[in-house]
Amino acid sequence: METNTAPKTSLTLLGLGGMGAALARAWLGAGHPLTVWNRTARRTAPLAAEGATVAGTAAEAVAANSLVVTCLLDDASVREALDDADLTGRDLVNLTTSTPGQARALAQWTRERGGRFLDGGIMAIPPMIGVPDSGGYVFYSGSRSFFDDHQRTLAVPAGTRFVGSDVGFAALHDVALLSAMSGMSSGVAHAFALIHREEIAPKDFAPLLVDWLTAMAALVPLTAAQLESGDYTVGADSNLAMLVAGNATLLRTAEEQGVSAELMTPYMDLMARRLADGHGDESDTGVIDLLVR
Amino acid sequence: METNTAPKTSLTLLGLGGMGAALARAWLGAGHPLTVWNRTARRTAPLAAEGATVAGTAAEAVAANSLVVTCLLDDASVREALDDADLTGRDLVNLTTSTPGQARALAQWTRERGGRFLDGGIMAIPPMIGVPDSGGYVFYSGSRSFFDDHQRTLAVPAGTRFVGSDVGFAALHDVALLSAMSGMSSGVAHAFALIHREEIAPKDFAPLLVDWLTAMAALVPLTAAQLESGDYTVGADSNLAMLVAGNATLLRTAEEQGVSAELMTPYMDLMARRLADGHGDESDTGVIDLLVR
Repeated sequence: METNTAPKTSLTLLGLGGMGAALARAWLGAGHPLTVWNRTARRTAPLAAEGATVAGTAAEAVAANSLVVTCLLDDASVREALDDADLTGRDLVNLTTSTPGQARALAQWTRERGGRFLDGGIMAIPPMIGVPDSGGYVFYSGSRSFFDDHQRTLAVPAGTRFVGSDVGFAALHDVALLSAMSGMSSGVAHAFALIHREEIAPKDFAPLLVDWLTAMAALVPLTAAQLESGDYTVGADSNLAMLVAGNATLLRTAEEQGVSAELMTPYMDLMARRLADGHGDESDTGVIDLLVR
Repeated sequence: METNTAPKTSLTLLGLGGMGAALARAWLGAGHPLTVWNRTARRTAPLAAEGATVAGTAAEAVAANSLVVTCLLDDASVREALDDADLTGRDLVNLTTSTPGQARALAQWTRERGGRFLDGGIMAIPPMIGVPDSGGYVFYSGSRSFFDDHQRTLAVPAGTRFVGSDVGFAALHDVALLSAMSGMSSGVAHAFALIHREEIAPKDFAPLLVDWLTAMAALVPLTAAQLESGDYTVGADSNLAMLVAGNATLLRTAEEQGVSAELMTPYMDLMARRLADGHGDESDTGVIDLLVR
């Protein structure tokens, strides 16, 4: 009961791109006083109409509240926006997609200027923001006490997952999942290319892809178990010798269908290298070892 | 009631690798008289102990039943196994992974020798075979009447999905889904490589990957809708301009973590080409157009 009537934390948001605007609407909708700033002023008007206070400069926006959230294009945009802001006593939550190294450096830079820093990585698309049970969430890493101080406010737009005191871990988790998605997208692109000139409707084919990829994604914990045991044969139902033989069929089919195999060959080449190195009885998990320098 | 007591169709299975053995056990377990053959005889003994009749040659196995299923290493293995068999009046179901072109050629070759032909593509791993509701199934294409004649028997090891009278379509669907999976596997490999030297346990990271990939796979129908409309901006929550900017963060993170980006760059390069071609407001669906020759 009390939580519903308690005053809502006021905060500042820098950045009103598609994601920033969605975050702004979630906080406004939940009754949080919100000050916004965007590099191009055009995007602030709709939010002002919905109750946000618009600051003329990033420095003014930062001065307005002790809790400051950034959701900008990249790390350089964050540095530029905060360059002449006074961060003394400010709690900065950076939701800008960045590398682990950039997050660690920005944390250091913020501390040197008298502020606290928490990094976040958003695992959602804008339509998921502010929607309970959308499946979207945000990774957070850095100071646990900072996170606990603001968890309730941060949980308004999306679920929260704290992944460690290493401030780079939120970005690392974020980038790792985005990288995995990029790989999946490349496979999906190749699959749609294969059927492009046949009388197979993409809308009929799509549900087959969804079901298959969902079923195969469920096998990822097997890869994790192999990595932890160091034994890449455990529980493997198909081994590299079979996979590499199958790859020849995949490549030949691409050729038949007039599709470039450029998205397929790098992974196949690594599988072939592992096979040539004598790992034919293992799964393809060993490819991971070849990626690490 | 009647279906349970009706005599079960007897059939022949050529090939007792991991998948073939699983198929054999499913049919034997359901009470179908089964004749088996394998190139290396070593693998036939366990099946004989479970009730299968073991043929000394592939030709003898084919002579034993009018319904003949092949599940061999590749197309060449099928040709070799059937080379001196009499296919007159035989109904041949080929579950060997092959290209659409190989399936069409094998259908022609079988017809010329007096047999009927149905091609299949197995979307399952051996532990899913014979397990109701495992999610595994088999694509079939070719003669609809042939399929209907044997559907009940074919449905014993796994669900059936007839995908068209073009006999190459089962193989095409099979290879397209396997290609998509290969892309996903490459992304997963890169993701695990990124965390390899950090204090992040693969087993803790795996469920995050599963949930994320499952959520993102559910967006594939959006790509299909864009392909059907020809408008790659429809419903896109992130455009190429944003994706390409994000790719720089993915590459820089790989560099920081000491991970080769070779599995990531081909797709990123195609996204950059589409962006350079003036498609910055579209999703990455246009990459598919670049793959097609």
